[in-house]
Amino acid sequence: MTEKNITFRLAQRLDVPSIVRMLADDELGSQREKYAEPLPESYYVAFEQIDHDPNHALIVAELNGEVIGTLKLMFLPSISFQGGLRAQIESVRVDKSYQGRGIGSDMMKWTINRARERGAHVVQLTTHKSREDAHRFYERLGFKGTHLGMKLSLK
Amino acid sequence: MTEKNITFRLAQRLDVPSIVRMLADDELGSQREKYAEPLPESYYVAFEQIDHDPNHALIVAELNGEVIGTLKLMFLPSISFQGGLRAQIESVRVDKSYQGRGIGSDMMKWTINRARERGAHVVQLTTHKSREDAHRFYERLGFKGTHLGMKLSLK
Repeated sequence: MTEKNITFRLAQRLDVPSIVRMLADDELGSQREKYAEPLPESYYVAFEQIDHDPNHALIVAELNGEVIGTLKLMFLPSISFQGGLRAQIESVRVDKSYQGRGIGSDMMKWTINRARERGAHVVQLTTHKSREDAHRFYERLGFKGTHLGMKLSLK
Repeated sequence: MTEKNITFRLAQRLDVPSIVRMLADDELGSQREKYAEPLPESYYVAFEQIDHDPNHALIVAELNGEVIGTLKLMFLPSISFQGGLRAQIESVRVDKSYQGRGIGSDMMKWTINRARERGAHVVQLTTHKSREDAHRFYERLGFKGTHLGMKLSLK
């Protein structure tokens, strides 16, 4: 580990404001999140859904008692690849004050190990085409950008 | 509907061989599926997991009693977008003998409506960069290719 005192664990309800703060503190995220006091109830509704589903895990990185990183991990059963289990990661963030120390990389490696232990044959994610630093970050971890990620907004 | 007698419905266990046949009958799919008699049990294990999870739906298109199309629809709770629900589609196939009749488009529109009724704010999917026909197909349905889809194989 780059930071010796860092731990990775499942998020608790109390961590939701720290997670939303990190999601909002970002060029794309600032347009779509609402980091306010009190936090919109919809964040807690989503947290409970994730927390109660054994195929979903909201992860945080904690350093000296402070939540400074987050990502969401999902396990998705699929018929394709002979009924192979997929792992999917989204909403990866490290607190801006702690970037550049290898925390994101350690958090991803910890998560990839979790996916391997569960028997997933692949870890997949999408990242906005504009996030070129992120592309390089994931490539260093062994990801290959073989796919086009497409979205249809329903709002 | 382009085909008047077509229906879209949840897949049943009996449909699994038809689904695997369509997944395998494809340049990329032929390298990773095993359409054999009997079908590998792993396909049925995955089917049962999908069938028992209310956030997952394996869909088939049926024409005159024959299964000629399939896709997988997932609903993914997420903290991002103020706790917004995402819909995700994968493994979209139409039997080669029935392509070019608008069946895939109707199946997607039916699925997008299902996502809208459930309250999803977005429908997302990834498609291999080599599938240029698929990119145009999804663009005609309103999807935008804003993201890079990255994969890390664990096998």
